[in-house]
Amino acid sequence: MDHAAAVTYRGLFALQHRGQEGAGIVSSDRKKVRSIKGTGLLSNVFASRSIPAELPGDIAAGHVRYSTTGSSRPYNVQPLVVECMDGIWAVAHNGNLTNAAQLRNTYQRKGAIFQTSTDSEVLVHIIADPEYCNHPRRLERAMERLEGAYAFLLMTKDSLMAARDPIGFRPLAVGRLGEGYVFSSETCAMEQVGATYIREVAPGELVTVDQKGLRSTTFGTVPDHLGQCIFEHIYFSRPDSIIFGENSHEVRVRLGRRLAQEYPVEADIVVPVPDSGNCAALGYSQVSGIPIDYGFIRNHYIGRTFIMPVADERSSSVDMKLSVLSGVVQGKRVVVVDDSIVRGTTSRRRVSTLRAAGATEVHMRISCPPIRFPCFFGIDFPSREELIASTSDIQEIRRFIGADSLGYLSLEGLLASVSNPENFCTGCFTGKYPTGVPSHHRKDVLEARTSN
Amino acid sequence: MDHAAAVTYRGLFALQHRGQEGAGIVSSDRKKVRSIKGTGLLSNVFASRSIPAELPGDIAAGHVRYSTTGSSRPYNVQPLVVECMDGIWAVAHNGNLTNAAQLRNTYQRKGAIFQTSTDSEVLVHIIADPEYCNHPRRLERAMERLEGAYAFLLMTKDSLMAARDPIGFRPLAVGRLGEGYVFSSETCAMEQVGATYIREVAPGELVTVDQKGLRSTTFGTVPDHLGQCIFEHIYFSRPDSIIFGENSHEVRVRLGRRLAQEYPVEADIVVPVPDSGNCAALGYSQVSGIPIDYGFIRNHYIGRTFIMPVADERSSSVDMKLSVLSGVVQGKRVVVVDDSIVRGTTSRRRVSTLRAAGATEVHMRISCPPIRFPCFFGIDFPSREELIASTSDIQEIRRFIGADSLGYLSLEGLLASVSNPENFCTGCFTGKYPTGVPSHHRKDVLEARTSN
Amino acid sequence: MDHAAAVTYRGLFALQHRGQEGAGIVSSDRKKVRSIKGTGLLSNVFASRSIPAELPGDIAAGHVRYSTTGSSRPYNVQPLVVECMDGIWAVAHNGNLTNAAQLRNTYQRKGAIFQTSTDSEVLVHIIADPEYCNHPRRLERAMERLEGAYAFLLMTKDSLMAARDPIGFRPLAVGRLGEGYVFSSETCAMEQVGATYIREVAPGELVTVDQKGLRSTTFGTVPDHLGQCIFEHIYFSRPDSIIFGENSHEVRVRLGRRLAQEYPVEADIVVPVPDSGNCAALGYSQVSGIPIDYGFIRNHYIGRTFIMPVADERSSSVDMKLSVLSGVVQGKRVVVVDDSIVRGTTSRRRVSTLRAAGATEVHMRISCPPIRFPCFFGIDFPSREELIASTSDIQEIRRFIGADSLGYLSLEGLLASVSNPENFCTGCFTGKYPTGVPSHHRKDVLEARTSN
Amino acid sequence: MDHAAAVTYRGLFALQHRGQEGAGIVSSDRKKVRSIKGTGLLSNVFASRSIPAELPGDIAAGHVRYSTTGSSRPYNVQPLVVECMDGIWAVAHNGNLTNAAQLRNTYQRKGAIFQTSTDSEVLVHIIADPEYCNHPRRLERAMERLEGAYAFLLMTKDSLMAARDPIGFRPLAVGRLGEGYVFSSETCAMEQVGATYIREVAPGELVTVDQKGLRSTTFGTVPDHLGQCIFEHIYFSRPDSIIFGENSHEVRVRLGRRLAQEYPVEADIVVPVPDSGNCAALGYSQVSGIPIDYGFIRNHYIGRTFIMPVADERSSSVDMKLSVLSGVVQGKRVVVVDDSIVRGTTSRRRVSTLRAAGATEVHMRISCPPIRFPCFFGIDFPSREELIASTSDIQEIRRFIGADSLGYLSLEGLLASVSNPENFCTGCFTGKYPTGVPSHHRKDVLEARTSN
Repeated sequence: MDHAAAVTYRGLFALQHRGQEGAGIVSSDRKKVRSIKGTGLLSNVFASRSIPAELPGDIAAGHVRYSTTGSSRPYNVQPLVVECMDGIWAVAHNGNLTNAAQLRNTYQRKGAIFQTSTDSEVLVHIIADPEYCNHPRRLERAMERLEGAYAFLLMTKDSLMAARDPIGFRPLAVGRLGEGYVFSSETCAMEQVGATYIREVAPGELVTVDQKGLRSTTFGTVPDHLGQCIFEHIYFSRPDSIIFGENSHEVRVRLGRRLAQEYPVEADIVVPVPDSGNCAALGYSQVSGIPIDYGFIRNHYIGRTFIMPVADERSSSVDMKLSVLSGVVQGKRVVVVDDSIVRGTTSRRRVSTLRAAGATEVHMRISCPPIRFPCFFGIDFPSREELIASTSDIQEIRRFIGADSLGYLSLEGLLASVSNPENFCTGCFTGKYPTGVPSHHRKDVLEARTSN
Repeated sequence: MDHAAAVTYRGLFALQHRGQEGAGIVSSDRKKVRSIKGTGLLSNVFASRSIPAELPGDIAAGHVRYSTTGSSRPYNVQPLVVECMDGIWAVAHNGNLTNAAQLRNTYQRKGAIFQTSTDSEVLVHIIADPEYCNHPRRLERAMERLEGAYAFLLMTKDSLMAARDPIGFRPLAVGRLGEGYVFSSETCAMEQVGATYIREVAPGELVTVDQKGLRSTTFGTVPDHLGQCIFEHIYFSRPDSIIFGENSHEVRVRLGRRLAQEYPVEADIVVPVPDSGNCAALGYSQVSGIPIDYGFIRNHYIGRTFIMPVADERSSSVDMKLSVLSGVVQGKRVVVVDDSIVRGTTSRRRVSTLRAAGATEVHMRISCPPIRFPCFFGIDFPSREELIASTSDIQEIRRFIGADSLGYLSLEGLLASVSNPENFCTGCFTGKYPTGVPSHHRKDVLEARTSN
Repeated sequence: MDHAAAVTYRGLFALQHRGQEGAGIVSSDRKKVRSIKGTGLLSNVFASRSIPAELPGDIAAGHVRYSTTGSSRPYNVQPLVVECMDGIWAVAHNGNLTNAAQLRNTYQRKGAIFQTSTDSEVLVHIIADPEYCNHPRRLERAMERLEGAYAFLLMTKDSLMAARDPIGFRPLAVGRLGEGYVFSSETCAMEQVGATYIREVAPGELVTVDQKGLRSTTFGTVPDHLGQCIFEHIYFSRPDSIIFGENSHEVRVRLGRRLAQEYPVEADIVVPVPDSGNCAALGYSQVSGIPIDYGFIRNHYIGRTFIMPVADERSSSVDMKLSVLSGVVQGKRVVVVDDSIVRGTTSRRRVSTLRAAGATEVHMRISCPPIRFPCFFGIDFPSREELIASTSDIQEIRRFIGADSLGYLSLEGLLASVSNPENFCTGCFTGKYPTGVPSHHRKDVLEARTSN
Repeated sequence: MDHAAAVTYRGLFALQHRGQEGAGIVSSDRKKVRSIKGTGLLSNVFASRSIPAELPGDIAAGHVRYSTTGSSRPYNVQPLVVECMDGIWAVAHNGNLTNAAQLRNTYQRKGAIFQTSTDSEVLVHIIADPEYCNHPRRLERAMERLEGAYAFLLMTKDSLMAARDPIGFRPLAVGRLGEGYVFSSETCAMEQVGATYIREVAPGELVTVDQKGLRSTTFGTVPDHLGQCIFEHIYFSRPDSIIFGENSHEVRVRLGRRLAQEYPVEADIVVPVPDSGNCAALGYSQVSGIPIDYGFIRNHYIGRTFIMPVADERSSSVDMKLSVLSGVVQGKRVVVVDDSIVRGTTSRRRVSTLRAAGATEVHMRISCPPIRFPCFFGIDFPSREELIASTSDIQEIRRFIGADSLGYLSLEGLLASVSNPENFCTGCFTGKYPTGVPSHHRKDVLEARTSN
């Protein structure tokens, strides 16, 4: 594929919601491997750079960074690019390895040096390990060393590989573009570049594309029940993506419909919290018959970096993103629908804003169960102490956010809204994970330095 | 009010949709007048600037630039700040003066020099004119010289003034913040800063705020029927604003409701074009009973400056903003609701994207009549040749955009959706304007140079 | 001349020492006038700009800003570009008008508005004045209204004009480049662009270049004795320039030779303060027979903007520019030669550094008389209170700077070193100026605001 | 030492001439190691960064990059910061390892991954090697694995180490600052920060500073004759530095004196090429009795990045740096003194400029012998084909540059100008190196990729 880096750049734009801390693209023209990386949004990193000139070639891999392990410092931006015995390897990782600390320790004891604080760096040490290097199932064996969640994109001078962990935590799909192939965490990026979705990369599958074409091998043991991340459907994925075989928008509408059955209420309007509550609010409205209306307006110009120029006003910065539509909510009994509650402070602000605008009743509906447990597999929730549902019961949360009523979708309701519910991880709700978790977990567990 | 510039900065964020070409804030601490101005978005202009330190004082005026007359070059960014006989004047202008060329010529013949190519600069020459300077009704008389559309904010070292043209083309409101007053084109900015909306500045009213408090005078002749810009309600204002005494969201929902009555159709879902068609789609759905669904997803990370790195793909850049939700539209008869059609090329792309995603029928509904005539009063439509409705009839437009049916709201329907319909300008639909228009009109009519 | 703006850009690089606060270039392709301006060094302003594409045309004028009147804010960067009755005028000014405040007042009383706080803006008002506009000697008469020091470059869509005040304060030369003409404050810029120096623009001369070629007219009354700025030769001009008919390097060597005659001393080495004392030190060495040696090394990487990251060390920032060569000065009796002493603090640091490095004696020699009076004609000296020679006698200065001896060149010695000494202004030494000075003088006399 | 990073920053400014391609500082507050790195000049990398806030701690190491091996891409900027078994290591390297490719290969075969293309990265792999890790002479043994030229600064969370190769190619000095110690390639950086020079780090010496104070150990075999780089004295070091026990300014003056003895000529003035020829020109003048004069003026505002805006004029960009002083050279017989000739093109331009300015004779004198051979030990000469003296004899070079005569200092003259001449490497003149050289040598020998 010509201009592989330009295609990658377009595709990454559709995936920007998955990570805003850094971005990078690596390309190969089969002679040289080149890369551009930097912190911040894609548009910052690639502003004033000429992608076709600086990143030529028909093979490319890109990444947008969302930090679960390792800080957002420049040296942690992916794809990692390293040289080992048999040449250059570039690695882009979505997910979180639960045995990264042990593997890091193992390799450090053998003399390995680490230049990032990401969990992903251990993979390149395994790949470079002479024990694996010459083995016919080199990459498959390398993957078998890893525990936890991963969708990996690997690139060499003349090939591209994609691998997904056997439990299938994170999504990864393969598509076709002209004579070539594309891989993406979400299918929305394929539509963006004009590629055609073929299928998911299967749990425990390694797909390799090189001049001989595409071939597939398997590794590890795929369990009876997968551990697909249900939070992808609840919040993380873009609604136009097909994830784990289903469209997220449709799942979310079903969540909202079910929520209306579980927690009906007499009210005048259903108001989504944009954009996270949009789809579920639609479903809630459909079932309840309460008309949807836009009670909140989102300001598209407030970026992640908005900082109020006067210090003591910074506390109100969240208000800059959503404005309430007084004319819509005034004198109304309002059902507000959002995807989840994490710390509770944002929901509290939403409720008080609606009341200030004249809503007579505010009923909060959440399209997933209470989040009570940490995620070890790629979602960056705060610590348990900060998760409000971890320390408070529903009534306490309701009082804290100031709502007249509060309804969380039940776990049963959640699972009834997806196909093959037995194949999903619901650990953040139940504390039961499909595989072992590390004894200690902190985001900066591998961080011995802070740097640039 | 302390930190007037910081308040202005917050307020401008809520008005950023009104102009993205430049931004500026002027402040006064009653001793000195200071300003920061630049091209691009607010966040660009004020990045790394310390507003409290660089713009101290309890009086401030700000502006975001949308060019109708004069290019978007740096010297055209407002507020204009000039010194004349009696001190510093800062001027921020929303609207378009139809006699600017004549006034400019008149003053140039008297020896005046112009440093911008905006129509707004003529006002400061009138203000500085000795004939007006010492007159007790100086500003009122100055305003009486102007023809066309204007909401002006004027600032001196120790006062702030707001004026609105007698025909009332453009919105302008006054509010209260603590002990002080705020003015804004839209009320959404008042909510943003915690101010309370008091009322509109009346057509032909000059409101002055200084240490003696607020006082009001009038100028010009207010016609029997005002010429309020109906396009503010159709598209331009933010839906949470109160404009001309009515909430734009509510007006838009009514437009959609009426549209459903005028152009009903058998269909499965109503899909808004986000965000311009959101409110009207809601109304259409309410009346038609056809459920609303999100068929398009908007990418929040594609800024105005997105430029594809490879030239020949630039044509597809519009696709980067909206993605279609195949699962929603596939196999469905879709009613797409948007606010207006200008050139027709964007609508055409929307229709073809929906069809490619499997929509079986695509019915386009537009919540205003065909735009056939230019605006001389502050909306930057393209030239008549480029306005598709100026050269094509409805059937031709329908064929061009590829829709199965096309319905434009009637003028009657439009007017029935606002209070006091006789007080609106509908010139872009009818060619009948509430006041004279210039014989020649080009956006760069005052542009004798290009510069930085 | 093709690419006039590119030629101007090259030439301005050779003039960057004359002003580092801002830079601008205006060009005309005979249809449109375009400009790029900004604060800071040329390299900042034009970084990432394409001069040939953005500033096409065969006529151009440029300027580097050094503020004597008006702050270094963006709106004060020149060339000024304005439109009046008969089109666009661009103005670049070197010098200082002593009647700017009166003229500004006069025009403001007539209704003129000012958009900068520079003295230069008055000229465009005179040019635009209908009294002058249609007069055959329009520009000559305009110049006759001005008092003080000026070398002006004026540009319209199809012509370029250069004018020099009748007293001849500031230098201005004309040269030939191919079929075209170039003007420059210093001839070093002509060499830079490959142009040939023809002659000075004469005091009271207006040179006009247009499609009819070059022609010369005169204005004002040239006095018996000119008031050429002798400080151009002492310090301001680049040593490779021909200024007022003489090469500055040669003048400076003569100043040093004379200084050696007036203030001989027994010493081991002559050390110049780089680069301002280089030429005079050479002359001092030649006459005294004391060998020159490099006692100071200049760090080429410390820009104007060097700010020490820790606040309390900022005081030592001057030390970052010059390092003493201990091996050269240790155990030596040193004659340090510099061009002038302003506040005395820098000289004091030089002396103490030399002593710390082991110099046994330090004799300071200055190649001009004590600066006791302000300059009203284009050199930005501090106020009288800050001029050490204004409040202290020679012995007090010597003690303040800590030198074993201090010798200032006498006024006679200074004048003996230039041709036609009667044609020089020595006001900063004598307080006697060749023409009237304003009663009040402050750099920000026209500054009613501070802005961006 | 408080604010170690701020001290390092000041010191690096004095060393900026040693590398302009990148800069970095690493600091430790004994708990965390932090770093800031970037491409370009110090002032670019640290602009708008707060060093005290971002780099706290009393230990720091800095580096300015000049590429001899490895490109100037971001990932090659030093200090390298890596984590291995026993914690964080930061490494800054001056010099060039001649066995880097072999070592890299050796470690890659063991499974090591490399993330830069610098030769310096091999050291951290040796340090991390379990064979060395627990050895009491760990670092000494690591150094013994290296061949070629190096001055290393190593930093851990709580210690700082400096090592110099046994042949002593590159300079490295230790000084005292308050209670602490500083290391620097040149002593000029010590003066800049107010530190006191103690002595050189000896060839084959490792100096360690930690909370126990400073201690010294040795490694390797110091040869009978050292291989100190004589080019440090000829060109590379700043003249105010003490290098290899001698002040470079004084050495250069002696080179010039000797040059005058070896190649006398009848002439009127001695003109240095600023700044590289300044000191030698002084010596030449002293012995020859021909007065020195400034025939060239250096433009201080032309940075490394000057790019002419019009493509076809780029060839003349060198002229932007030096201007000839016509008045000085016109009608004169000129001796031009420079430090060296590499490709010959720059010297040729100098000669032709002098002739164009009216010099009647131009005699070029070079303060070192012809450079005929590559440097493998840290100076980035071009390839042999580009070294004019490698392919042309003296008469051919003279004709190429257009001089009336050309004199290169003899090898004997060069060696007679330094103390202990037997301790210097003169390989670039003789092709005889003090130790083995790699069979193949290209700057990008380790470069398998190009990246950012």
